[in-house]
This record gives sequence, C-alpha cells and structure tokens, in this order.
Amino acid sequence: MFDFKIKNKCKDSNARIGEFTTFHGTVETPVFMPVGTQATVKGLFPETVADTGAQIILANTYHLFLKPGEDIVEKAGGLHKFMNWNKPILTDSGGFQVFSLSKLRKITEEGIFFNSYIDGSRKFITPESDMEIQKKLGADIIMAFDECTSADAGYKKAKTAVERTAVWLERCYKANEGNQSQILFPIVQGNIFEDLRLESLERTLPYTKCGIAIGGLSVGEEKEVMYSILEILKSRLPENMPHYLMGVGTPDCIVEAVDRGIDMFDCVLPTRIARNGTAMTMRGNITVRNSVYKDDFSPIEEDCDCYACRNYTKAYIRHLINVDEILGGVLLSLHNLRFLKRFTDKIKEAIKNNCFKEFKRSFLADYNKKIQ
Amino acid sequence: MFDFKIKNKCKDSNARIGEFTTFHGTVETPVFMPVGTQATVKGLFPETVADTGAQIILANTYHLFLKPGEDIVEKAGGLHKFMNWNKPILTDSGGFQVFSLSKLRKITEEGIFFNSYIDGSRKFITPESDMEIQKKLGADIIMAFDECTSADAGYKKAKTAVERTAVWLERCYKANEGNQSQILFPIVQGNIFEDLRLESLERTLPYTKCGIAIGGLSVGEEKEVMYSILEILKSRLPENMPHYLMGVGTPDCIVEAVDRGIDMFDCVLPTRIARNGTAMTMRGNITVRNSVYKDDFSPIEEDCDCYACRNYTKAYIRHLINVDEILGGVLLSLHNLRFLKRFTDKIKEAIKNNCFKEFKRSFLADYNKKIQ
Repeated sequence: MFDFKIKNKCKDSNARIGEFTTFHGTVETPVFMPVGTQATVKGLFPETVADTGAQIILANTYHLFLKPGEDIVEKAGGLHKFMNWNKPILTDSGGFQVFSLSKLRKITEEGIFFNSYIDGSRKFITPESDMEIQKKLGADIIMAFDECTSADAGYKKAKTAVERTAVWLERCYKANEGNQSQILFPIVQGNIFEDLRLESLERTLPYTKCGIAIGGLSVGEEKEVMYSILEILKSRLPENMPHYLMGVGTPDCIVEAVDRGIDMFDCVLPTRIARNGTAMTMRGNITVRNSVYKDDFSPIEEDCDCYACRNYTKAYIRHLINVDEILGGVLLSLHNLRFLKRFTDKIKEAIKNNCFKEFKRSFLADYNKKIQ
Repeated sequence: MFDFKIKNKCKDSNARIGEFTTFHGTVETPVFMPVGTQATVKGLFPETVADTGAQIILANTYHLFLKPGEDIVEKAGGLHKFMNWNKPILTDSGGFQVFSLSKLRKITEEGIFFNSYIDGSRKFITPESDMEIQKKLGADIIMAFDECTSADAGYKKAKTAVERTAVWLERCYKANEGNQSQILFPIVQGNIFEDLRLESLERTLPYTKCGIAIGGLSVGEEKEVMYSILEILKSRLPENMPHYLMGVGTPDCIVEAVDRGIDMFDCVLPTRIARNGTAMTMRGNITVRNSVYKDDFSPIEEDCDCYACRNYTKAYIRHLINVDEILGGVLLSLHNLRFLKRFTDKIKEAIKNNCFKEFKRSFLADYNKKIQ
C-alpha cells in the first residue's frame, strides 16, 4: 500500500517531490501536517482543515492515551471516524510528550513511568504498549516510541537516549509485525552530536521499511546547528522513502530542510501563534493584534486565497483577537495552515522548474528582511 | 421598507406567524436571534450561523462602542461588512449592559456616566449619542436607550426607570428622525409591577412605529411572574408590528411567550451553555460533559439535521469539552442554534395547523418531564 514515488528531483539540491499512498488517501510531499493533538485541530472543522489544502494531520498518542483513552477511540471505530477526518492521519508515539510534559518520570529498560499531566495519576508506557495504543487509535502512520533529549542534555544523556531508542525501536518493530493497516516510522535521535546522529541512523536503518523520521531537533538548539545535523544525514537517508523532520514548521526551516532532502513536517506553532494573533505571510510574521491594524481594511495577505483573506480584514481580525473572541484565532489558524500549503506548493513549483536554490535564496532574502 | 405582515393567526391563542423585511432580507417570525455581542457569534463562521437557519442576529452597542469603537465599524462599511454577515442585524442599545456590566455608574437626566468594564476609563452615553453610535454601526433594527432594573429593584426604582425610559425614548425618537435606513424599536420597562408595565406601554406607544420590545424580564424574577406580565400586555401591544421579548431563549419561555403574542427572541444562553458542554434538545437540556456519554456513539439528538449531529457523536463532543477543546463548544453552539430554529419551526407548523395550544401542552409535558 505505502508506495513512495519520487516524481521530481533537483540537480543541485536534495529537494524532491514525492508521493505516498495510505488507506485514507494520497499525500504529495513536501508536506506540512497540521497538528490535531487531542483529535482536533484546535477550533477548526475538519472540512476547514481540508479546505486549507491539508492532506494529512497529526494526532498525539500521549494526549489521547490520557483522554479519552485509546479504548474509547477504538470503540468509536478509530480516530478517522471519531474525529470526522477521512484523509490520512499520523500519530506521534508520545515519547516526546512524556519527556516534555511529565515532570515526574522514571525511565527503566522496560519503559517509562510518568505522572499524567492532567490528574497526576501514575502511568506506564512500554514500546509494546505504545504500539498497542497506536494500533487502537488507528492512524495510517505510527511512530516508534523513542527517547528525546533537550538541546542542553549533554553528550552522555544523548548517548544513553540513542541506545535506548535503538533497543526500543527493535521492540516496537517486533510488536508491530503483522500489522497490515499501519506503517511504522522509526525516529533518529542523537541530539546535536554528529557521531551520535550517525550512530542512531545506522541502528535505525535495519528497521526502516517505509519512511524515517528525525526527532530531537528544533528543541532549543540554534537553527544552524539543526541545518548542520540535517546536512550530515542527508546523503545517508534511504532515498526511496519519505524523510520526516519532526516538530518543524517555520518557512525558513522548512525551505532549508527541503534543500537537505526532508519531505514531511509538523509543528503546533502555526496554529498556536495564530491563537495569539500572529499571521504567517511570505514576508514574515505579522502581529495582527497590533494597533497599527485597527483601521486596516485589507486582508492579511493580498494574494492569499484562504477563507479569512477572502472575507475579512485585518481590522476585524485584530478586533476579534483584541476582545478574546475565538473566531480571531480560528481565522488566523486557517490562514496560517493555508499559508504553509501555498508555501510548500511554491517549493514544489520551484523543484519542478529546477530553480529550487534560486527560490530559496530569494524567499529567504525577503523573509529575513521583514522579520528583522 | 419595514412591512410587517401577519401570515397566520391562532383561534385560541395570541400566537401568530409574521414576516418583516429589512434592507438585508426578510425575517419570518416567531424568530430566535443568535447573539453576536462583539460582532461575532462566539466561535462560529457567519456561514455556519446561517446554516443553522438563523435569519437575523444581534450585536451589542455597549461592547462595540468600547471596542473597536463605532468609528472603526463605520469606516469598515458598517457591521454587515465588518463581520461578513449579509442578513439582518439588530443592535441592542447597550442600556442593559451599562447597568449589568458597569459597577461605577451615575445616571443623570442627560445620560449615563460609567466606567468601561475593560480598562475602567470614564465614558458617557446619552440617548442622542446612543442613536449616533447605532447609526454608525449600521444595523437594520436599532433599540431605544432605556433604563433596565433588576428583578429585586423595588417599586420606587422601577418607577423612576419607567419615567426615565419614557423621556429618553422621546429623545431617541427625535434624534433618529430622518434615518431612512434603520428601524427604531422602543422598549417597555416596568419591572414586575403591572401598573408600571401598563404605564410604560402607554408612554411608549406614541413612538412605536414599526416594532416594540419588552425589556427587563428574565432578569431574575420567577418565570410565572414573567408570564403574568406578558399576559396583561398581550392584548395591548400594537397588533400589526412585531413584539420582541428581550433576553429570553429557553424553549419553555419561548412557547409561553409566543402564546402571548411574542414574535422575536434573543438570548446568550444557548451559546453560553454550549461552551460549558450543555446541549438543548426537545426533551430538555443534556450535559454532554457527563461521563455517562463517554462511549455513547450516537448523535446529540437523533432526528436533528445540524452539522454536529450529522457528523459527530456525544462521545467525541464530550471528549472535546472534557479536554477544553474549542471545537466542543463550537459544535454544541451550532447545535443549540439549530435546535432553536427547529423548535420555532415546530411552533410555526402548529400555528399553521391551528393546534398551537395542543403543541404547547404536549411539548411542555415532555420537556418538563426530562428536566426534572
């Protein structure tokens, strides 16, 4: 089923256009995946998410395990039916959230004990139970249960995490054998250390059958550090599979990562900053909340075709954000998702026309000019 | 323009079906008007509001005067354009909010001084300035600036408010002379006192040209008291105009009020309780948040045709409410608005079939059974 085809490649870059198919439809890459952590992209109807051009969304195992619980989702007929989204879904394994959201945790060889961030109750997840939870959730793509370290973790901790991630990957892989309806993506860790990244990749490859993810980046390190890690990995990633860079969603990072062969992205930021009143545009972010927009009756972005830009002015959206009206964040969320679709479309266009490097240079020049 | 036609009447009740036309379209009564206090029905796209069958919505002068300010709305081309709603709009005068939201206020013959509930800044509104603000907002129907008292205000305060409301109505009327694009509805006050209600009505009638509103009910008094006030007013309201009962939106009160000749309703409750996880149904409210619905995969109301009932289960909506996801309140809001449209449609059907009293009896029997 999961058959990744490369449709276009660049001469002077690792950028490429690809396509893969799941039981719930086809995804063209490079792709940004909107995040629906708790089985909803915050505030948006699934139809609205689809209208932005989204082809696949993310949901989170950690959150759904805690509430409503994977058994409820399974009884509902799986995530697609539960949340009324009929296109592909990817579930993150929850590894990252166990580390970032649960203060009291204890890692053993067997798995992770942690306290629910909701009610403090004691929970335990193993690679095997994680596969079982993700099976019940029923996403098209599931992720291996990994150990993610923060940017300042240091070499020793990062090395231990690489080791554990490798051991757990093998267990995830075995636990998932025979699962015909879901695709397992392993995750490369190794923090900011080149040798650990290469080691992690080596240990990951034997279990990499359909796609591969790079985790533990965009967790506090400098962007240049992230790019250099991607640089050393790029020629070693299996070519005929999609490469997924987890947790990245700003246009500058996306274009740099695509240049280094990355095909898939996800990030909560585009919708989170939307709820705080920030719109993404081709010339950088704009803070719609600012009083300078109080009587600006033009759309967020003149040439944007999203529902918000077609029907509302900056002045109205600013008013909504300013008086804490939900619709403000909703309109900016769908604009930002549409922006990222338009942006990846522009990237694809450049790849097709064999002018990706030129596109990247010119885009970053405009984008950085405005940001500063 | 504003031409109220009575299309059907009942033999044994004051219930009727009517229709009036504004510059932005026709409204069939009895009608429930969703409330969009700050130029947005909380969390819903205008298209979604229209999809529930809403024919006219409310916005609030008090809130819009404070933010973004009537000048911004005027510059935007008026409320319809500002908020992307092309059907009729009614603006409340803000009288009620000045009394209920502003703690520090001082009433003089001239007008009301009050402190903004947002930043505490000192504001002043007079009947004349209120008409000017509502003109700039540009709604189809505007309301007179009145003084509303709480249910426990006592006779003396209620009498003073009736007096002031009458004087201010005359000033509103004069200030609004020559306004061809908006219809002014005066408001009858008088609290729970029959003689004051009748006095207020008498003093209101000379300025009543298109429609009349009854204010200061549903502000804390028993429902039976409200019904008895409507009872003494019903035969004295000008027949060939719509009668608007302000701030009422529960099905039992609506059906009792329609029986007494009321045509128009508004209330924040249906959308407010939605955001707290409560759904309105023909058999009373249900608290979707309750754990009893955690694995209930049926829609909120089996025979409801709203978007929420067509696409989502109670289990999913409960999950959303339970984890504070915006979409939960959004789905219940549109369901509750659709419920009130379906409910007023049922009332109309009963009036057409000359069986309104029977409908009312049978509906209330079911409704009260479930509520208790």
